[in-house]
Amino acid sequence: MKQYDNPDQKEWLDLCKRAQFDKSTLDEAVTNILEDVKENKDAALFKYAERFDGVKLTSLTVTQEEIEAAANEVSEDLKQAIVLAKNNIEKFHESQKEAPQKIETTKGVECWRKSVGIEKVGLYIPGGTAPLFSTILMLAIPAKVAGCKEIVLCTPPNKQGKVNPAILYTANLVGVTQIFKVGGAQAVGAMTYGTETIPQVYKIFGPGNQYVTKAKELAQQSGVAIDMPAGPSEVLVIADETCNPSFVAADLLSQAEHGVDSQVILLSDSETVISEVNKEVEKQLAALPRNEIAQKALENSRSLYFSDMNTCIEFSNEYAPEHLIIASEKADDFIDKITNAGSVFLGNYSCESAGDYASGTNHTLPTYGYAKNYSGVSLDSFVKKITFQKLSKEGINNIGNAIELMAEAEGLQAHKNAVTLRLKAINN
Amino acid sequence: MKQYDNPDQKEWLDLCKRAQFDKSTLDEAVTNILEDVKENKDAALFKYAERFDGVKLTSLTVTQEEIEAAANEVSEDLKQAIVLAKNNIEKFHESQKEAPQKIETTKGVECWRKSVGIEKVGLYIPGGTAPLFSTILMLAIPAKVAGCKEIVLCTPPNKQGKVNPAILYTANLVGVTQIFKVGGAQAVGAMTYGTETIPQVYKIFGPGNQYVTKAKELAQQSGVAIDMPAGPSEVLVIADETCNPSFVAADLLSQAEHGVDSQVILLSDSETVISEVNKEVEKQLAALPRNEIAQKALENSRSLYFSDMNTCIEFSNEYAPEHLIIASEKADDFIDKITNAGSVFLGNYSCESAGDYASGTNHTLPTYGYAKNYSGVSLDSFVKKITFQKLSKEGINNIGNAIELMAEAEGLQAHKNAVTLRLKAINN
Repeated sequence: MKQYDNPDQKEWLDLCKRAQFDKSTLDEAVTNILEDVKENKDAALFKYAERFDGVKLTSLTVTQEEIEAAANEVSEDLKQAIVLAKNNIEKFHESQKEAPQKIETTKGVECWRKSVGIEKVGLYIPGGTAPLFSTILMLAIPAKVAGCKEIVLCTPPNKQGKVNPAILYTANLVGVTQIFKVGGAQAVGAMTYGTETIPQVYKIFGPGNQYVTKAKELAQQSGVAIDMPAGPSEVLVIADETCNPSFVAADLLSQAEHGVDSQVILLSDSETVISEVNKEVEKQLAALPRNEIAQKALENSRSLYFSDMNTCIEFSNEYAPEHLIIASEKADDFIDKITNAGSVFLGNYSCESAGDYASGTNHTLPTYGYAKNYSGVSLDSFVKKITFQKLSKEGINNIGNAIELMAEAEGLQAHKNAVTLRLKAINN
Repeated sequence: MKQYDNPDQKEWLDLCKRAQFDKSTLDEAVTNILEDVKENKDAALFKYAERFDGVKLTSLTVTQEEIEAAANEVSEDLKQAIVLAKNNIEKFHESQKEAPQKIETTKGVECWRKSVGIEKVGLYIPGGTAPLFSTILMLAIPAKVAGCKEIVLCTPPNKQGKVNPAILYTANLVGVTQIFKVGGAQAVGAMTYGTETIPQVYKIFGPGNQYVTKAKELAQQSGVAIDMPAGPSEVLVIADETCNPSFVAADLLSQAEHGVDSQVILLSDSETVISEVNKEVEKQLAALPRNEIAQKALENSRSLYFSDMNTCIEFSNEYAPEHLIIASEKADDFIDKITNAGSVFLGNYSCESAGDYASGTNHTLPTYGYAKNYSGVSLDSFVKKITFQKLSKEGINNIGNAIELMAEAEGLQAHKNAVTLRLKAINN
């Protein structure tokens, strides 16, 4: 990690920069895949499974038998862990439900909103060595709580044409309605346009490599919604002298192991803490199986000393981290000052892993500075809020003249007339 | 309006189609403007004001003097109308505030969300003959309620270099922090990248012509968020025999006058109603100043007879209208069946104009079928919801093993280690 000593505010913008990616090179490749899937549907999906996943599939659909077999392959311990996480995530997302609240804005004018689940949603879960079943919990549980009727999941098969059992077990547990063996940009295309086998959905969620990310970005232009723009994962830890440096080091490393493009930032008002954390990082790093990845990620990473905790918070707000850990016994004191962050972990026992898996909060969060303008995934992401209004005769009488004047001033005579006719009918 | 008698469900998809637009032709023109603004900043804006707005500006900023002068040019009646609308919109959007709700998902594990206003937002208000001051109410009021600190407004100047007084009066009334004389795609570029005069913002809201729409779509790729994808305005009216056909006709026409690409749809379970409404439309159309526009819009429009009201609702859910009017004394009976709509107007006295201006609901709504996957603008659009979690020693003890098992199963050893270190420290 590069170290900075009390950098001047003018340098902050540079210090908040993430690695730049040239996304334009993918445009053509991904556009071609999307077009191919739109036109050739299932046939294109079988072709890409052979080309990219190295498997000749006979069916794209995961069968009930495969799901049942998977359940036997997952250990009882892991099943219990997944159920514990499910319960917490369910509780937190259930608490986000909003009852319609009727407001009478003027006598006789009632307004309210009603949340309705997006009917069809698609979840993308990457394949590869790490089976991200935790992300299924994070996406399918709020979808279910929201009342989404179709919850479709696409994930690439391995070379044997199989899907990891933990993925199948979790998807079945949380109520995913259909699971398909399709990966990459082609999965995004399938859920955007629909194929003979795979239903078209209205919104696509989930992480993925740069092809998947690009496909989601492009698919938006065909009318499908997406969860949020994507970028490499990141954590910012603000630690004071009441922190435990070995915990802080472990938290930084748990982010760094995600990928070589991950970024970890340490801020502290104590130079001793920075030096101790750095020593601990070195020590723990050696023991990690993914230490090469973590080592590379640390090269993009920074520790910054500031003279006080408030400046640390200010810098963090400018950085807008995906994950913000306040490693301090006084963490609560800073809550009100936090303006930009995806998810915040307060105190020495709230490690990022807790939120990644089982505290109940969602781990699909805005990264790459998007915490300035986007929220993480929540129940809101799976509903539309429809507004309703009901005006009585008294209601339109009370606000009718105002509407007439405004419509007239905007040059919209028919808008005015819709009110005038009603006022005449009431007052004649 | 084309008429359809009980069309078969197989035809619904076609009957729900909106006009198609070839958006690709604008790509190059708009990309060039955005690049130019990014590079040449204010200089580019002055150049485009001359080219597109026909005026050589000396300053891009609306001065305090201009704002004060504008207030004198707006009639007292209109001012009062705007204030009435402001109060209703404020009340409804205030009611959308959420107090943080702390949930203990497992003993010792607390989770909650906190809404924080997006710090800098940009509003685009089109120029032209109709000064859309009502849209300023719809965007700046929730921005203010949300606690956004900078609320920047861009709107094109007229040939005299001036902005319509009603726009300036309204912007000042509702707390817009800065107003600029910049229109078109170049305004979107200015707010996306920032110039010497115009601050960069984190999210851009507001309607506009196809250049503005395209610019918002492209600007997203530079990291700025936008309110929602845009399309021509539309209304769907479901009327039964308890409707007032002249009211229904007026509502259809108030949508049709928006633009030649507007679409209006009438559904009814009564052929008499359809015929009476059509007669009323003809009658009222003649008297409208914008009757040529409305006439053209009616050519894209449809009336459909279905044998019962429930089928009307089903069709409407498939169409997913921006505005849905239920012109029936029994409108309330259908609320629970509505799954896709932007804003709903219940009963014979809830005309669309009411929601367009003054009932309190927002008029920035998902159109073009986007009501299936997007909500209209609300307080939510101006905040990020940051999640927080706080685990006590007991909390991490209770869920720690589950996290270790899940992290291990996902092959993320450092994630596991962050928990293991804490469990050891607590239990030693």
